[in-house]
Amino acid sequence: MTFAARMLGTHPSPSITDRALTDAIQAAVDCAQACTACADACLGESEHLNELVKCIHLNLDCGDICEVTARELSRQTHFTPNHARSLVQACADACRECAEECEKHAEMGMEHCRVCAEACRRCEEACNALLSSLNA
Amino acid sequence: MTFAARMLGTHPSPSITDRALTDAIQAAVDCAQACTACADACLGESEHLNELVKCIHLNLDCGDICEVTARELSRQTHFTPNHARSLVQACADACRECAEECEKHAEMGMEHCRVCAEACRRCEEACNALLSSLNA
Amino acid sequence: MTFAARMLGTHPSPSITDRALTDAIQAAVDCAQACTACADACLGESEHLNELVKCIHLNLDCGDICEVTARELSRQTHFTPNHARSLVQACADACRECAEECEKHAEMGMEHCRVCAEACRRCEEACNALLSSLNA
Amino acid sequence: MTFAARMLGTHPSPSITDRALTDAIQAAVDCAQACTACADACLGESEHLNELVKCIHLNLDCGDICEVTARELSRQTHFTPNHARSLVQACADACRECAEECEKHAEMGMEHCRVCAEACRRCEEACNALLSSLNA
Repeated sequence: MTFAARMLGTHPSPSITDRALTDAIQAAVDCAQACTACADACLGESEHLNELVKCIHLNLDCGDICEVTARELSRQTHFTPNHARSLVQACADACRECAEECEKHAEMGMEHCRVCAEACRRCEEACNALLSSLNA
Repeated sequence: MTFAARMLGTHPSPSITDRALTDAIQAAVDCAQACTACADACLGESEHLNELVKCIHLNLDCGDICEVTARELSRQTHFTPNHARSLVQACADACRECAEECEKHAEMGMEHCRVCAEACRRCEEACNALLSSLNA
Repeated sequence: MTFAARMLGTHPSPSITDRALTDAIQAAVDCAQACTACADACLGESEHLNELVKCIHLNLDCGDICEVTARELSRQTHFTPNHARSLVQACADACRECAEECEKHAEMGMEHCRVCAEACRRCEEACNALLSSLNA
Repeated sequence: MTFAARMLGTHPSPSITDRALTDAIQAAVDCAQACTACADACLGESEHLNELVKCIHLNLDCGDICEVTARELSRQTHFTPNHARSLVQACADACRECAEECEKHAEMGMEHCRVCAEACRRCEEACNALLSSLNA
């Protein structure tokens, strides 16, 4: 059981109790770290650096958005679905865009982009599942 | 295997390859989320809010420092132990201080403080182990 | 002239050169700091703490979103309006929501809420002006 | 008068009232933005990208540390000099290291590195002045 799930379980009055929230927080936390690490690994690819500039940009943006999404979703006191929705949508968009770019480089053999794309796709799915749950 | 460990394994030229680095990144990422969630859960304790102000302050500071420590340690291209040391030390200090405060409230029955203190102690230990490894 | 404006002026190939971008970056940076400080000042209002919990929550969320918006807008290499739009919208929404809450407490004499509401309204306007400019 | 100075002036019980604190917060906020922008401008220097990798790394680290330092210094409720010291020192170190690297590229004509180095030196000085003040 992750710390994210355990922490949600201890809140004095959780606004949402379903699995979709825990999954989205954990996926966003993991994706933020993967994007930071992928931007850095791309910077270490000295032979291919110019082809990776767009990927680094998307990694940096996606990492930042995932981090702030995880923070906002972790705040359950006075949580309202309306307040969260636009950020979760922006996060899903950033993850999809970053995954699409990473997948191109993964096909060329960049392992860090392959693992990062996986983290982005997982976060994109978790954000979409949470959006369905918030809209229900 | 965590995304942090998998990402480090894909770096084109990792500066450090030992376990201490992976553990510190993962512990800092988990602790950042736990601190954000604990600050929020404390805000939901309407009967005890005034006693928890110091805890919320330490949660916010510790969460921020853990987040930036995880980011910096995830950057292995041109990584130098000297550069990392002062931040990892600041992170260990913040985790110890936050854990000590959370432990007081855990004894009074605050479950979120108990789980958060556990995340802080784990991160404090992981930072100290990494400092030993960087100094070796 | 702010550092944000000077830095934009030095980019090797800026995507957008108009004033709306510089204003939005600076307003978001200022608002992020004001929100962090207002959350903290609210925590220091020991007589009124319970009434301020929602304000603290909105301060923390708004500060985080402003910070990441300033970062994303500062990245002009491979910048695309489409990519930025959803985050800038989320930032404008968070600023409006936070300003509305702060304005209630400003009316009751909370000076930190009054100054913070001003920073939020300025950032909301700057985001809306940038959205018009991106859509043009 | 900056928002940072105005916000500090409204705190219900400020721990420190001197000028050194306001200056350090504002310098850290400005430096964080300059570092984010410089990392991005370096990514746009397609002819010189490989020479700028170390600079990008230091920009990213310095920007993150400045951001969290500004946040921590903005929290005056239960502020203690001991708690702040190690982070402010880490911030001064990161700024010096980043300034030294940027200055090399400024000499080669990179304007973004020249402006960023100026922001870093200003933040380094403000952190050192604050450390003197905290130790007094």
